Amino acid sequence: MVEKGNISRRQFVTTAISAATVSTLPARSVFAAAGAGGKPVPQGPVALTDSPSWKDQGVENLAKSPHAKLRDIPVRAVTITGGFWGQRREINVTKSIPTMHDLLEANGRMNNFRRLVGKSTAAQIGPVFSDSDVYKWTEAVGFVLQSGDRPELRASAEKLIDEVVAVQEPSGYLNTYYQDDHKSLRMLPQTQTTGHELYNIGHMLQGAIAYYRATGDRKLLDAGIRFVDDFLIPNYGPAPKKPLVSGHPEIEMGLIELYRITGDKRQLDLAGYILQGDKRIELPERRTIYMFSGTPFTERTKMEGHAVRAMYACCGATDYYMETGDPTYLQTLNKLWTDTTTTKMYVTGGVGSRSDGEAFGDAYELPNFRAYGESCAAIGNMMWNWRMLAVTGDGKFTEVIERALYNGINSGMSLDGTLYCYRNPLAFDPSTGDKIRNPWYDVTCCPPNLERTFGSLPGYFYSTSTDGIYVHLYDNSELNWHLENGVGLKVVQKTNYPWDGNVEIKVTPAEPSEFTFYLRVPGWADHAQVAVNAKGLTGATPGTYLPIRRRWSPGDTVQLRVEVMPQVIEANPRVADDTGRVAIQRGPLIYCLEEIDQPSGISLSDVAVNPGRQPAEQFQTEFRNDLLGGMVVLHHTGALYERGASEKALYSRYGREVATRKIPLTFIPYYAWANRQATSMQVWNPLLQS
Amino acid sequence: MVEKGNISRRQFVTTAISAATVSTLPARSVFAAAGAGGKPVPQGPVALTDSPSWKDQGVENLAKSPHAKLRDIPVRAVTITGGFWGQRREINVTKSIPTMHDLLEANGRMNNFRRLVGKSTAAQIGPVFSDSDVYKWTEAVGFVLQSGDRPELRASAEKLIDEVVAVQEPSGYLNTYYQDDHKSLRMLPQTQTTGHELYNIGHMLQGAIAYYRATGDRKLLDAGIRFVDDFLIPNYGPAPKKPLVSGHPEIEMGLIELYRITGDKRQLDLAGYILQGDKRIELPERRTIYMFSGTPFTERTKMEGHAVRAMYACCGATDYYMETGDPTYLQTLNKLWTDTTTTKMYVTGGVGSRSDGEAFGDAYELPNFRAYGESCAAIGNMMWNWRMLAVTGDGKFTEVIERALYNGINSGMSLDGTLYCYRNPLAFDPSTGDKIRNPWYDVTCCPPNLERTFGSLPGYFYSTSTDGIYVHLYDNSELNWHLENGVGLKVVQKTNYPWDGNVEIKVTPAEPSEFTFYLRVPGWADHAQVAVNAKGLTGATPGTYLPIRRRWSPGDTVQLRVEVMPQVIEANPRVADDTGRVAIQRGPLIYCLEEIDQPSGISLSDVAVNPGRQPAEQFQTEFRNDLLGGMVVLHHTGALYERGASEKALYSRYGREVATRKIPLTFIPYYAWANRQATSMQVWNPLLQS
Repeated sequence: MVEKGNISRRQFVTTAISAATVSTLPARSVFAAAGAGGKPVPQGPVALTDSPSWKDQGVENLAKSPHAKLRDIPVRAVTITGGFWGQRREINVTKSIPTMHDLLEANGRMNNFRRLVGKSTAAQIGPVFSDSDVYKWTEAVGFVLQSGDRPELRASAEKLIDEVVAVQEPSGYLNTYYQDDHKSLRMLPQTQTTGHELYNIGHMLQGAIAYYRATGDRKLLDAGIRFVDDFLIPNYGPAPKKPLVSGHPEIEMGLIELYRITGDKRQLDLAGYILQGDKRIELPERRTIYMFSGTPFTERTKMEGHAVRAMYACCGATDYYMETGDPTYLQTLNKLWTDTTTTKMYVTGGVGSRSDGEAFGDAYELPNFRAYGESCAAIGNMMWNWRMLAVTGDGKFTEVIERALYNGINSGMSLDGTLYCYRNPLAFDPSTGDKIRNPWYDVTCCPPNLERTFGSLPGYFYSTSTDGIYVHLYDNSELNWHLENGVGLKVVQKTNYPWDGNVEIKVTPAEPSEFTFYLRVPGWADHAQVAVNAKGLTGATPGTYLPIRRRWSPGDTVQLRVEVMPQVIEANPRVADDTGRVAIQRGPLIYCLEEIDQPSGISLSDVAVNPGRQPAEQFQTEFRNDLLGGMVVLHHTGALYERGASEKALYSRYGREVATRKIPLTFIPYYAWANRQATSMQVWNPLLQS
Repeated sequence: MVEKGNISRRQFVTTAISAATVSTLPARSVFAAAGAGGKPVPQGPVALTDSPSWKDQGVENLAKSPHAKLRDIPVRAVTITGGFWGQRREINVTKSIPTMHDLLEANGRMNNFRRLVGKSTAAQIGPVFSDSDVYKWTEAVGFVLQSGDRPELRASAEKLIDEVVAVQEPSGYLNTYYQDDHKSLRMLPQTQTTGHELYNIGHMLQGAIAYYRATGDRKLLDAGIRFVDDFLIPNYGPAPKKPLVSGHPEIEMGLIELYRITGDKRQLDLAGYILQGDKRIELPERRTIYMFSGTPFTERTKMEGHAVRAMYACCGATDYYMETGDPTYLQTLNKLWTDTTTTKMYVTGGVGSRSDGEAFGDAYELPNFRAYGESCAAIGNMMWNWRMLAVTGDGKFTEVIERALYNGINSGMSLDGTLYCYRNPLAFDPSTGDKIRNPWYDVTCCPPNLERTFGSLPGYFYSTSTDGIYVHLYDNSELNWHLENGVGLKVVQKTNYPWDGNVEIKVTPAEPSEFTFYLRVPGWADHAQVAVNAKGLTGATPGTYLPIRRRWSPGDTVQLRVEVMPQVIEANPRVADDTGRVAIQRGPLIYCLEEIDQPSGISLSDVAVNPGRQPAEQFQTEFRNDLLGGMVVLHHTGALYERGASEKALYSRYGREVATRKIPLTFIPYYAWANRQATSMQVWNPLLQS
């Protein structure tokens, strides 16, 4: 897709983009359509002050954010050319996003809009936040179109956007649930608390912005601006305006990203006001805990409450810090990050261990069978760490991004792209009757969230800084972009990552140029070797970026070599659910046992692993091209209790029934579990008692 | 209290009872008072057909139950003369029951009654089942009075009963919530499902019956009979009557115990009808699972739903079996019992592992920190096993009774008798802010339930059968009763049980007589020695009753000797929460670690136990007279991880941080936990990894 050959400063970047997307996207009117009932919308579109141009903006546009150390590159600047993520992304575009469109339609999400303009007689359907499903799907399409045109998806999205904006009231208000039938409840404090009005608009803004950055089409964006500028800002905010509460944080991110486009500081200020809560809306403490909002964000001391709400609140707060530099935000964010990563995160990067309230548990409360680990929460964790990485350039945040992305997020979508996990447990027993992967949920937040995440993935591979470029993720890929000083830069990765740890990176500046190439050294590695043009460098420390400052010339090659060995992982002793158990990890991938892969007739309840003194030597790797899209499986000689669990009493005397025999066990990566028939699974496996 | 000396056949029993209670209880009118608003109650009291006399009836009156193998002895027939249970019972009578009376009063439970007859202007207060708290307290007093008069308690109960019956409507209906304000909701299907009307009456019947068996006073009993005979039976039942559903099982037990007094088979039939559900009240499956009612009991295949509901339903169904002999009930009960005891019961005898819905979890879902284990559910477990024991005479049911009584029930009341557990977790961390023992709960089901259970305890020590007598529980105590053939029998136990396993039992029939003395051999013992008059017997098998058939003469002595050694217990491998952990048991008592007993400054998170190859030798016993009412503590040299959990990462490489040093650990019995300052506790302790 990307034109190859001689390139000059900046020019090849533009070439790449136009070849990939822009030139193939037909022009479309950017003027707003008529409002609901055919009434004209009062104002024309506001002037946008964003730079760089829409097509050069990243997942976030941090170009002018004063407290961002790193800046996103556009999604379209990176082409994933195959390999681990190429496969996933292709299925996302060809299977997941189109089938989700059909499911949204079949489940009445679009009729909710049509009904309001007389084009459908179907009743309002789905939860109050159903509009957000449509907006998240739009965002997924927006990110996909940023990587290149998909005419059918684009046509579907244009039709959908037309139907959305058609119902917007002249006031700017837009919500299919609180127009018409439930109009009298609109924006009441209790509706704000539970009705997801602002949440829906937050997703609308994110969807509109992704679509704008793909196409330049402002139609949905302008509808979002009208909601914010015409409906929210004149009427809501600090006294004497009416108060707001963020019942489910999301609007904060949306408002700040909008501010990055419009330059309208009132939008940033509104986000800050929402982040601090408004005492005029009195809420019980359990509600403000659950919502992770309604009280000052900067007074939070621990992660608690609904996990997705908490993660989105932290995303919005980090965005707010990047624009304002308010140090109390950064202090709070650091405290919350430490609390999360040292006491409340699964080894898969999932968060929110409790089904009850879809919530964070207490510190070290990380059950496996009962783990909630909502896909949306793992995505929120990645989004938040992405923002913290932009603030700091600190590799510890990239560790969390990689852990969540490869494991607790990637597990959320079936390998064929048509089934989704809402929960992502770390152990499973099909006899409970639980069905873990489903094509549709009435609360269908996770499926389009996964789709937008995979759609946006190229935007997470690199960032720029004033002194150079950071590489965060490894896969076969090609960057065509430029340094912040404007020097064009092409970076090509060749690798088998994550199956092995060798990455060859060709760095091609448009002209020889001195800058720093910040190379991520994965934190799971014991040690790493880095060479430039085959000359070894020292100082590569796992979990950090190795800054390679030099004068780079076209064709320079960076080599990263990390030994990807099976590792046996234990949890902190305070994680009671993991006592006497270990997890197996190889590279960034967490592994699990599925009963279906073990010798016929045995139960996972009867097996133990035996890592011995040299754990790495007890696990043999095999690349299985035929299995689940191709993967490295791990073979291990474990132990099988001679007397099976089903024959044992519930309680018995210790050590009286310990006869075991050796048994071959086979581990697969966690992300691939539950893609065959229903079978038991576990990530944390009992250690053989000696 | 009991007259000693020469005794003739049957005579000393009567003497004992009259000395203990009857002669000291003044006569009181048994005629019903006027109904609410002063209207006369339509009918006089129905004739009772019960035998033996009220004062000779047990916790249950199984004297005429055709399918009961064992028959209860009266509570008053056994005097606990000190020791483990003597201490607990004294506190129950002198502290718990009086302070609970004051709390019921202070929290408006009695004003709910007074309000309806114009004697209080306070608003209705408490949940819809608040009346049941009053009835359970009345039942506790009833059982206490069966053991001897307590004039102050009796006066309080008489006053309370007068106030209760004063509000009964002429129709027979009685419920402080659904009279007056909520009258229009009364007995609607949805009210039956959630409003606890029948539950309240079930407890009223149980309270009335216990009080009747203490005093012969029929006042409350007659009110219960009027509710059943005048209100329920004429109006509700199979078509064409209106349908019933047992929203919270309890009425079933009450109706059947009432039937055992009145001989009115319509009451038994009504219980049977309720146990089978009525399809005319349509309920979603999740509701019938939660309620453990509303569908045919005999179609149940597993324990699920709200644990107390399930336990009470099983109690009622076992009662129904004892009266009818319907084999499908016994099949179902056996299936449910196996499911409970092999997959869903804590080592403490507690059941119902989930806080969410106060419910049974899946098989082997037995979390420790998050354990619910409601005190009421453990009590229900004991009550159900008591009934199954009566059906079968099988010692496996006594094992469950003892396990629940000494551990999961006994833990529910503080040692000073004024604080109660609702939850009984098996691990605790005070930093969660959870306060586990409280004087009062707005849902205060557990405190009076514990009080009635300890009040009734003497009634659980023995049963009779056609061929002799069964001894179930061991403590210093004296039985004055008779065999089923009428031969008077005195049995005196001397023991330090549970602190040691030696019990000396003096068996004194009124005249030399051949019968079988069924001696329980505790199931936790490795082996047991039994002697009669110092001559050893063979065949004592732990977990069964040793039938000692002989001609017994006054002064014969049975000796039971069981070695009470510390035991290290492991859970079935399918109990994921107990992997790599062991519990310590000694005799019937489960032990735990409380942080407060360990060397200063260490955290339970950092310790492990090291049972080695000879576990019993690794635990040293010490009787501590000064500690928590006197108890055997266990000393063990465990291991302390040199690097504390708080210093460790959430996830790290296995085996890299295992340096340990020896540390003295002290275990106390689980029932005594949380009686000092807030401190961490755990029953299942990590094994040292070698």
